[in-house]
Amino acid sequence: MEHFMGFSLLPKQGDFFESFNNLANTAVLAADYFKTLASNGSFNVTTAAAMHDIEHKGDEITHLIFKKLNTTFITPFDREDIHNLANKLDSVIDMINAITNRMKVYKMSETSSELKQFAELIHKSATATALAVASLENTKKMHAALEYCIEVNRLENEGDIVRDTTLSTLFDSGKDPIYILKWKEIYELSETVLDICEDVANVIESIVVKQA
Amino acid sequence: MEHFMGFSLLPKQGDFFESFNNLANTAVLAADYFKTLASNGSFNVTTAAAMHDIEHKGDEITHLIFKKLNTTFITPFDREDIHNLANKLDSVIDMINAITNRMKVYKMSETSSELKQFAELIHKSATATALAVASLENTKKMHAALEYCIEVNRLENEGDIVRDTTLSTLFDSGKDPIYILKWKEIYELSETVLDICEDVANVIESIVVKQA
Amino acid sequence: MEHFMGFSLLPKQGDFFESFNNLANTAVLAADYFKTLASNGSFNVTTAAAMHDIEHKGDEITHLIFKKLNTTFITPFDREDIHNLANKLDSVIDMINAITNRMKVYKMSETSSELKQFAELIHKSATATALAVASLENTKKMHAALEYCIEVNRLENEGDIVRDTTLSTLFDSGKDPIYILKWKEIYELSETVLDICEDVANVIESIVVKQA
Repeated sequence: MEHFMGFSLLPKQGDFFESFNNLANTAVLAADYFKTLASNGSFNVTTAAAMHDIEHKGDEITHLIFKKLNTTFITPFDREDIHNLANKLDSVIDMINAITNRMKVYKMSETSSELKQFAELIHKSATATALAVASLENTKKMHAALEYCIEVNRLENEGDIVRDTTLSTLFDSGKDPIYILKWKEIYELSETVLDICEDVANVIESIVVKQA
Repeated sequence: MEHFMGFSLLPKQGDFFESFNNLANTAVLAADYFKTLASNGSFNVTTAAAMHDIEHKGDEITHLIFKKLNTTFITPFDREDIHNLANKLDSVIDMINAITNRMKVYKMSETSSELKQFAELIHKSATATALAVASLENTKKMHAALEYCIEVNRLENEGDIVRDTTLSTLFDSGKDPIYILKWKEIYELSETVLDICEDVANVIESIVVKQA
Repeated sequence: MEHFMGFSLLPKQGDFFESFNNLANTAVLAADYFKTLASNGSFNVTTAAAMHDIEHKGDEITHLIFKKLNTTFITPFDREDIHNLANKLDSVIDMINAITNRMKVYKMSETSSELKQFAELIHKSATATALAVASLENTKKMHAALEYCIEVNRLENEGDIVRDTTLSTLFDSGKDPIYILKWKEIYELSETVLDICEDVANVIESIVVKQA
């Protein structure tokens, strides 16, 4: 459909898909690194800087997509959906970076079983999100995209329950207020990552429905 | 206008209005229930679950509107306005649910005169919002819609003043930091409900101006 | 271009630019006043009311732009960009007002070297933002707009570093939890002003790229 007699009518559509996959895979990379840090309790200045590098890579890919969007006449999906998809995928990475950065600021190096749970959910959700994104390029795979989106929604619901249990335990812990203030923020940021993955899934669902 | 010789050119417009009224009325239901809980100080696991059911109903109606939007060619308003209207109405319900859920998590069962004030404002604002939404279907009633929007704006301003007074009193109370942290969050979430009702009113104003 | 033989094809475009400059200059006014208050430590009920007046002026200009947008057929930029530009400029003013209002609520009158740093960054960023906005009217000046946007981005990065250092110091201070809770909020709101200036810059970049 894209090529006719050597003439490319929509020469840049492939670029969009490639950039989206790059961005989604960068989110998986951030989630993977976060899971390692949460497993080992290895939050420090060095690992925060490494996460920041991943975040910066996400910014660059997002900027590239926006630039392409503003200079491309024919796009594979609605312009607004492309903008939202890039923006929300980038926010997933930003939010994972915000957690490790805030832990650096608060000089929190220890981990917790609850943070490991969140890191596991975030990793699963980023992975399902990236698989949903990868399914968008091929019209025949679009049904698969919806399956991955359902999984992202399920993980967000699971995250809500983990957050509620975690905060209940934290506020019952009798720990000092500063300790509670810090961890409350880290756990809420963690749950927000899952919310933003759900935002991505909503954009993808919207794209798929329009293509049907 | 919609029917000509038995042929329906815009057969699905009525559905949009019905769904919007359903969603706005679900927000009123949530506000009504919240007012009862705040009056009686009956926040607990059971009432939080009942509020969650209302929130789930809101999600279903919103999802239905989005699906309809993505598969309908001709819509009664700008597509973006429809999307924003559904999204913001749903957020009103989400935010009321977030308050009762957070009170459950923090094991807060008591009420306060300030929470009763907020519950009263939220109930008034959700009601005015639903009346504004109901006015959208009939072009002749659109002036009434704007009157309800002005009321929603007024209630938001009133909420800002209540929040400021409430937080001043709370921080002057000499209560322990954890107590202050919990109630600060509940009061701020309460005020946010009024902000989101104002967001709904802004979308409605935008729709009315374009139809004029 | 706009006038041909005395006939104005696009008679209202000039109005948009005038309103945008008014709004951006109101943001500079708010930033300027905030810098004075932070320098002198003169936060009180009277100065909070004066800032609120500035915020109200911003609301009026924004409302005017939205009304114009909804009733004008031909606009100088994409409708969505106009909406976002007005909305985000207004949010800059709202957020500066939120800081002084919250300090009034918390009865904080003192200043700090960190707050002075933020006030300086906010003033620089609002000024660069206003210069970027002013560059939009003249196609030949659009390159200058991008330079100002780069400066706004740079100031946002600087603000992130100031916020991290400031919060680290605050949490290490050994001050009581309520003191930390209050100042954490003030510093985070301050950094958010810089984030929103960056949002404005992103909208401006998007406008410039499309005009190229």
